[in-house]
Amino acid sequence: MKPKISLITLGVDDLDRATRFYGEGLGLPKHDVEGGDIAFFSLEGTWLALYPREELAKDIGSTVTTQSGFSGITLAHNVATKSDVDDVLDQAVSAGATLIKPAQDVFWGGYSGYFQDTEGHYWEVAYNPYQDLT
Amino acid sequence: MKPKISLITLGVDDLDRATRFYGEGLGLPKHDVEGGDIAFFSLEGTWLALYPREELAKDIGSTVTTQSGFSGITLAHNVATKSDVDDVLDQAVSAGATLIKPAQDVFWGGYSGYFQDTEGHYWEVAYNPYQDLT
Repeated sequence: MKPKISLITLGVDDLDRATRFYGEGLGLPKHDVEGGDIAFFSLEGTWLALYPREELAKDIGSTVTTQSGFSGITLAHNVATKSDVDDVLDQAVSAGATLIKPAQDVFWGGYSGYFQDTEGHYWEVAYNPYQDLT
Repeated sequence: MKPKISLITLGVDDLDRATRFYGEGLGLPKHDVEGGDIAFFSLEGTWLALYPREELAKDIGSTVTTQSGFSGITLAHNVATKSDVDDVLDQAVSAGATLIKPAQDVFWGGYSGYFQDTEGHYWEVAYNPYQDLT
């Protein structure tokens, strides 16, 4: 198995809203495909897809459960400076995200905060002085 | 915001078990760090991290909820041929994963199947004849 995640798919409640958030709001590059209730964003390394939550559940043969609380997965976007953390959190909130944890110095030595996208998924925005993942 | 997901963190119930699954089982390259109840795998583009579920929930200020059913996020590993899909699914199951959906021709024109890792997270293994994400 090649060490690569090809694609992350987020189940969404409102595909148009989520597509606007990631496309216009965060400025991610949309990869247009013909037809289908799905949106792709062509990112470096691992692409992002948005797909209706109930369709995604159907695809794995699961039932949709009402999602309350935390799904158990977070995505992280690392940036080069502390002020970039502030900027990206501001951008996300302006685009409709909910600020979950304001940017702050954190126990592992970095500086980070969290937002929740319009569909409830958690993103950390982080500055990591030890490991460059930008 | 640069179009990149830096890191995906999966909340896990058993960090040692999950680390063995992804490291020895799937053969992903571990990136050793000093101390801390966390495991990193340095993948192409987007890294993978494993972190105890309750610690991850604490980090976002959430409470741990009993996770029943589907979290609403899937990861995908794309490969170059149909038989590679079969091989990766076999490898995952041998390493302790649960086969959720056997590999099959799917409605969008590809060939794919799903497994659930040792901690309950869903992975699609896919051959996509239209878009090379390998």
